Amino acid sequence: MEEISRPVPGEKEALIRIRYAGICNTDLEIMKGYMNYTGILGHEFVGVVEEASYGDWIGKTVVGEINLGCGECEFCRRGMKTHCRRRKVLGIQDKDGVMAEYCTLPIYNLHVVPPTIPALAAVFVEPLAAACEILEQLNILPEYQVVVLGDGKLAQLIAQVLRLHSRNLLVVGKHPKKLELLRESSIKTMLLDEFQRSDDSFHVVVEATGSWKGWELALQRVRPKGFIVLKSTYANTLEFNPAPIVINEITVIGSRCGPFANAISLLEHNQVDVERLISGIYSLTNFEKAFRRSRESSALKILLEPDSTEQ
Amino acid sequence: MEEISRPVPGEKEALIRIRYAGICNTDLEIMKGYMNYTGILGHEFVGVVEEASYGDWIGKTVVGEINLGCGECEFCRRGMKTHCRRRKVLGIQDKDGVMAEYCTLPIYNLHVVPPTIPALAAVFVEPLAAACEILEQLNILPEYQVVVLGDGKLAQLIAQVLRLHSRNLLVVGKHPKKLELLRESSIKTMLLDEFQRSDDSFHVVVEATGSWKGWELALQRVRPKGFIVLKSTYANTLEFNPAPIVINEITVIGSRCGPFANAISLLEHNQVDVERLISGIYSLTNFEKAFRRSRESSALKILLEPDSTEQ
Repeated sequence: MEEISRPVPGEKEALIRIRYAGICNTDLEIMKGYMNYTGILGHEFVGVVEEASYGDWIGKTVVGEINLGCGECEFCRRGMKTHCRRRKVLGIQDKDGVMAEYCTLPIYNLHVVPPTIPALAAVFVEPLAAACEILEQLNILPEYQVVVLGDGKLAQLIAQVLRLHSRNLLVVGKHPKKLELLRESSIKTMLLDEFQRSDDSFHVVVEATGSWKGWELALQRVRPKGFIVLKSTYANTLEFNPAPIVINEITVIGSRCGPFANAISLLEHNQVDVERLISGIYSLTNFEKAFRRSRESSALKILLEPDSTEQ
Repeated sequence: MEEISRPVPGEKEALIRIRYAGICNTDLEIMKGYMNYTGILGHEFVGVVEEASYGDWIGKTVVGEINLGCGECEFCRRGMKTHCRRRKVLGIQDKDGVMAEYCTLPIYNLHVVPPTIPALAAVFVEPLAAACEILEQLNILPEYQVVVLGDGKLAQLIAQVLRLHSRNLLVVGKHPKKLELLRESSIKTMLLDEFQRSDDSFHVVVEATGSWKGWELALQRVRPKGFIVLKSTYANTLEFNPAPIVINEITVIGSRCGPFANAISLLEHNQVDVERLISGIYSLTNFEKAFRRSRESSALKILLEPDSTEQ
């Protein structure tokens, strides 16, 4: 926790007062050394624009895409700024993040939050967009058997999104209470122990466990000609033999940031229910407590609230 | 080398007299322990039908698909017998192969070789079909930069096939003479040393080096949102961190057996030139010499010829 001066927005940037910031597993991985990042953490937020060169933005509640492309390279010019090689990434790479009272972001990256979406839901737009990315990459056919490995906060969002596209969706996790939340959305669930005793296989396996053990399980349970979607990144390596990928002609799809507009639309039309994933809201001064809580296996989304009067 | 009795074809099988059998890297991997297979090796062949319950087939020159599906499961019923879980695989799994005077195969697996295709070209149909499989799995857009890693016998076939679909094809290898063969087909080539000093990146990287070092190079050189096609299988494991696959949203596609009809059509229309890949033809009695030769780095395709009068 450091006292720093209010950031000064660059050209075409907005100054945003943070209302809520979410803690993501990537933040926990960064604290372990992933990406060698040392600035202010945090890339999930909802906030209010306080300064902007285009006056229209002032006072608007916004969320923001986290990749700051150079705007000039081939990727940026093709609308793929999330893959700009010179990109900065909010709270992850060369750009101070949102676990602070203020952040700055290019206007280009902002999305206005419609007034019908509460701030406590809007703070989920970034990870919800990451969940939506799967649908941009893979056409889930009606006959596909789909399994999501993991019942954590990202897995929960992925399951809620995939549920809208698949009638054959299963979520496998270790935490009865987290699985219970999914069943409340009529999503079929199974405890990992039981899943390991079964021998079902799947056209699509989404690996969102937060551990490479999920990768091994994915390889075991994906059907020939099936798809494994990798949603998580880790600091450590793993050992494996890729022969089954070739023999079974598996397609492995790496999946990262996704379309904010789709995520906002899902929230606007109440197609997903995110607020019940909140396990706690802490003031910035209590950030240590917040991170401790977010590491507990019972926790889902932990939020930081700079305005909070909590001590 | 063993004296065994002529195999007896099962119901709906043909007895095929082998004219040529090809040595594939998979055979060399099997000899190292891959697949725990202990029967007669060999799955690339051209031969003549000597016995068949359907008389029409007798005397026909044929090649044969190597996967023997159960014919009853979901995969077989959907035309995906290459992925039948109960499959036998010619010379690889529970089915004696073609490095012999005779083999048997279901009529269902046979393809007649048109008389315009010489036997020495037809023996390439199986690996050529494997090369064609890439096009079944991935739509290579005109603007894609494509690189094939490897200049061995499978890489050569892949390059010849991809050349027909990409104007931006590069093959990277270690062997000047093998690269020379590719340049004769107007395919751009680069020595590995030079490639490692360059920093070009590619939409599609086909890993066909026969070693996991190619996998690491593929990960380094594939562009964000690009594709890595894995064409080879190995007995050993590798260690790596899959984070770049997620961060760069790479798609990894395992690719194995392919469509025989496409391969036959390419040969029939002289769209590929395979005979110059033959580095030696040996009699069955000289199989040890043949395998020794096939392990030499200068060798491309080595054939066995059961009828040969060579001692």
